Amino acid sequence: MIKKTARYKITFAYDGSNFAGMQVQPHQRTVEQVLTVAVNRIAKKPQPPVAVIASGRTDAKVHALGQVAHFDLPFEIEPVALLKALNSSLPLDVLVKKVEPVSFDFHARFSAHNKRYRYRVSQGEFVNPFKRDYTGHFKYPLDVAKMQLACQDFVGEHDFTSFVASGSNVKSHVRTIYSATVVPDNTQNEIVLEFSGSGFLYNQVRIMVAVLLEIGTGQRAVDDIPKILAGKDRQLARWTAPASGLYLVSVGYENNLHNTTKSIDEKGNLK
Amino acid sequence: MIKKTARYKITFAYDGSNFAGMQVQPHQRTVEQVLTVAVNRIAKKPQPPVAVIASGRTDAKVHALGQVAHFDLPFEIEPVALLKALNSSLPLDVLVKKVEPVSFDFHARFSAHNKRYRYRVSQGEFVNPFKRDYTGHFKYPLDVAKMQLACQDFVGEHDFTSFVASGSNVKSHVRTIYSATVVPDNTQNEIVLEFSGSGFLYNQVRIMVAVLLEIGTGQRAVDDIPKILAGKDRQLARWTAPASGLYLVSVGYENNLHNTTKSIDEKGNLK
Repeated sequence: MIKKTARYKITFAYDGSNFAGMQVQPHQRTVEQVLTVAVNRIAKKPQPPVAVIASGRTDAKVHALGQVAHFDLPFEIEPVALLKALNSSLPLDVLVKKVEPVSFDFHARFSAHNKRYRYRVSQGEFVNPFKRDYTGHFKYPLDVAKMQLACQDFVGEHDFTSFVASGSNVKSHVRTIYSATVVPDNTQNEIVLEFSGSGFLYNQVRIMVAVLLEIGTGQRAVDDIPKILAGKDRQLARWTAPASGLYLVSVGYENNLHNTTKSIDEKGNLK
Repeated sequence: MIKKTARYKITFAYDGSNFAGMQVQPHQRTVEQVLTVAVNRIAKKPQPPVAVIASGRTDAKVHALGQVAHFDLPFEIEPVALLKALNSSLPLDVLVKKVEPVSFDFHARFSAHNKRYRYRVSQGEFVNPFKRDYTGHFKYPLDVAKMQLACQDFVGEHDFTSFVASGSNVKSHVRTIYSATVVPDNTQNEIVLEFSGSGFLYNQVRIMVAVLLEIGTGQRAVDDIPKILAGKDRQLARWTAPASGLYLVSVGYENNLHNTTKSIDEKGNLK
């Protein structure tokens, strides 16, 4: 007997505050773990269990607005029914925003073409209690124009050895940054940094943000980034910005790998 | 030997998500408890310890933007130095925004003339994970115009027996509401309700919000509130809106009871 299976791509948001990151770890509450529980409940607990494959890791406390994963179910199901079943089953700090049936060629990690990250820096002498888990707080005045100029030095293909945490064991540190922006949000007293690229190394965005903050305070020269990249030495980049300010905004794929379908809009409604 | 003591009024914000409310309770993390620890550390642990007196309780999960308390220190200290010392000592989910030296006539609870509460209702079919602790979620469509009309029936002096939780043991249920507003925030897909009044009973705002939501859906008639008030029966008002959407915005006092001084502005800076 041949079982009919079907592959689904899900796009989901999570508040990372109470998670020990994306990836399953023993005795820890992770996003992958709560998703795997929910998916296997819907799949009626098959043996072996259904595996949920994400586009990549995010660290403890890091948030996502549009993380992506895929999994195979032992049956076909309407995307909207699956979306509702997942959101009924998941805890409130994870929200599945979109479900798409995809071909078995689609792989959340290997098919990913690009990722976009956002980093929210909150300013002011004291931390707003409502932002403590949702921004990285930095009290010193920043020259945003300098940061805007300097961040362009990240754009292009570079060896990011100076911008990878020591825990990483990937072979190549070469990555391509497609765009980098630094935008002040004066009503919120925040500075918002965004990076899109082919992929990012462990802690790369948080180390890039920390270097840009040092450029913003004048502790570093505005043309320091090419030197740090060329040095290929993690010690050159020094700090890592806190996880709480980081958001995985979106993961990009080639469009022909999946069909569009209904999703939850910015207002929380199905559209 | 006569010790010189000084009374201080503090205005503070807190994210109520991880607190079992304002008031000290055994074996619970409360705002009063963390404030008392911080104040007594600054006071160099006098015996008996310094008591921190708040304007009133807030429930578990309820937030504050401008809660007020007072305490007496066994010495005088510059308000700005006290503000910085408190914020260095307090956990990040509490922020002291203002410190004012006050006369011994000032009492945070008994001198309070009015309080203002805000309630944030988030709409949409699904809960935004980043709003789950900061709004009350209500998925059903609401007729805001009806709610705006109906909320005016709360304004004035009324017996709020129908709007008090059964746990309350105060003698009089008569309170005066000075203003009531219902304002849609379309960019956030929220509806924001605000009430200012002489004082509020246990759960009063959350029960008032629940009645207004029922009027907004059409489950209740727009002129139901005078009948519920007249009935003086808690069963008539039925629901209580979740604590997560409620904010104590401010507590009002007569101006001659204290001097103004430096405070932290909306951007987190001392001004």
